[in-house]
Amino acid sequence: VTVRVPAGALADFCTALFQAVGVPAPVAREVATSLVYADLRGVESHGVARMEIYLRRVTEGMIDPNAEVRVELDNGCTALIDGGNHFGVRAGMVALEEAMQRARRHGLGGIGVRHSNHFGTAAYFVERAVARGLALIVMSNAPQTMPVTGGVRPFIGTNPLAIGFPTGRDAPYILDMATSVVARGKIIVAAKRKTPIPAGWAIDRQGNPTTDAQAALEGAVLPFGGPKGSGLAVAIDVLCGVLTGAGFGPSVRSMYDDWSKPQNVGHFFLALDIERFMPLAAFVERASQYVGLMKNQPRAPGVDEILYAGEPEHRRAQAGRRDGVALHESLVRDLQALGVRHDVLWPVTSGAL
Amino acid sequence: VTVRVPAGALADFCTALFQAVGVPAPVAREVATSLVYADLRGVESHGVARMEIYLRRVTEGMIDPNAEVRVELDNGCTALIDGGNHFGVRAGMVALEEAMQRARRHGLGGIGVRHSNHFGTAAYFVERAVARGLALIVMSNAPQTMPVTGGVRPFIGTNPLAIGFPTGRDAPYILDMATSVVARGKIIVAAKRKTPIPAGWAIDRQGNPTTDAQAALEGAVLPFGGPKGSGLAVAIDVLCGVLTGAGFGPSVRSMYDDWSKPQNVGHFFLALDIERFMPLAAFVERASQYVGLMKNQPRAPGVDEILYAGEPEHRRAQAGRRDGVALHESLVRDLQALGVRHDVLWPVTSGAL
Repeated sequence: VTVRVPAGALADFCTALFQAVGVPAPVAREVATSLVYADLRGVESHGVARMEIYLRRVTEGMIDPNAEVRVELDNGCTALIDGGNHFGVRAGMVALEEAMQRARRHGLGGIGVRHSNHFGTAAYFVERAVARGLALIVMSNAPQTMPVTGGVRPFIGTNPLAIGFPTGRDAPYILDMATSVVARGKIIVAAKRKTPIPAGWAIDRQGNPTTDAQAALEGAVLPFGGPKGSGLAVAIDVLCGVLTGAGFGPSVRSMYDDWSKPQNVGHFFLALDIERFMPLAAFVERASQYVGLMKNQPRAPGVDEILYAGEPEHRRAQAGRRDGVALHESLVRDLQALGVRHDVLWPVTSGAL
Repeated sequence: VTVRVPAGALADFCTALFQAVGVPAPVAREVATSLVYADLRGVESHGVARMEIYLRRVTEGMIDPNAEVRVELDNGCTALIDGGNHFGVRAGMVALEEAMQRARRHGLGGIGVRHSNHFGTAAYFVERAVARGLALIVMSNAPQTMPVTGGVRPFIGTNPLAIGFPTGRDAPYILDMATSVVARGKIIVAAKRKTPIPAGWAIDRQGNPTTDAQAALEGAVLPFGGPKGSGLAVAIDVLCGVLTGAGFGPSVRSMYDDWSKPQNVGHFFLALDIERFMPLAAFVERASQYVGLMKNQPRAPGVDEILYAGEPEHRRAQAGRRDGVALHESLVRDLQALGVRHDVLWPVTSGAL
């Protein structure tokens, strides 16, 4: 059973929860907006389901909601940012702003970020840059969940990569993907339901392929595309972690299991000013033509429409802004419990909204 | 049966062949070196097996070996290069040089290239940048061979992506990959031998999965990792083709089947000066530590050693420089025939070299 909640009311509720644990209003609003944005796009794994862990990271002192996010090294079109263990979304927004300014001034802006935390869905940043006529590439490293090719135990995170650009159509092109075959959350769900998982998703503790969800959780989720996905995740770890002074490999701490020190996640943002190559209007015309040709291709059996990256998410978000965000009943119960604990009223909603 | 040919003698032979069809000596040497480099690394699909088609593209006027590779737009840390239908390797080397210069001056260098051709193995460029203490990302688009997710017929090329950085060890990290599950060349070989191909490599003309190599050739090779690989290949096409004014999707012409006009391939080079983020020595120490941790992970059953991207290729190249490049007898026969046709002597070699 799902409950539909107006996006604005849900964002207000989450903002108030963050404020209740001492997060300044503008930051509370930013992080809440990013989480609701993920739910609107149907990316539940990065949505308000994270409220509980985000709040706990704040109350346990692992996220510092009053930190100064500082530009440490400022070098022409690059910069290194120290996130001060602030919310990843906040550090990311500063990085985005710096990257966009530099792209406008120099053509490119490349920003490394260290001492950050989980930054939510990368599409949140990409959509903002694209709306300003820029192309954006965003990467982050993450705590260990995947083996490298040839390995058995988790060594790299499901390090996400996002790329976006304007298309001149309703939906910008936004590829926002983890470098794992599948979100670990899906394996958690299967383990709870005691249903098997497809072959190729994960290995057990000994490194053997498994379709047993519990064995997979004790083992590791696999990189997408074998050695290629593994190699990409490593390259992302190097740009986000090794290059920035953030953690990498084993030194990026778990958001869920490590309460000894902040995560020290690293990010890398690269903004590109399209107008350095051709007028934006010309690019958009070519991009729209490209997307049109793609969508008009002959379709595989059973496929009604060819959708490009970001297109289904954009449609879901439009529907969600109109009809409300669909949340599972169990999640609503968890959120309401958080509301009770922090004395924040749950908005009046109805399943039929 | 393979024949071992000294790398230098093989490069001399290929250089002389290029000169025989009117390629100026320095360019002939550059392209030949790039092809032999691929063979040394064991990437036969991008090695001297391409001599025949490269020569034919020149003699048919599809590659202009005397073109001027021009910087068309010069904008701070970005530039747009017109390759003039020169060899892709030549246009790529100009782009690399421009990218590296800009990275030194500004921290980043981002170079788009249009009116280019097949540029060989991207690792050739990456290794040069990494030797100078830079990180490099290289992309190229390519003629249509893969459907996008949901499609049936080829729409995107096996658009390669390469990323590299120094490791402080013998082998730099060089991830150089096509965005396809497998090189189309492997399916061609299976079709010749009438052996089946693994499931998941390709679809037939109707879009159904197939293990029949001939049906796969008439159908399409698949992107790696499903929608993620498809989305990456599209993003590469946009950066290399849409953004630069090169061909994209259907307007990148086949190197083998289209003799009406030059290919109009597009590339994108992004160089990053590591020292804008930390001293190179500090980065190399961190990268070496990272790679060491990775290699010391527990190994999967049957795995003797965990190798990072570029490490097996580097070892092969070292062995090849010592023992000669291993070429299949049939390829040697083809090369010798080219030698006879263009009056270039095949070097004296022996199988036991």
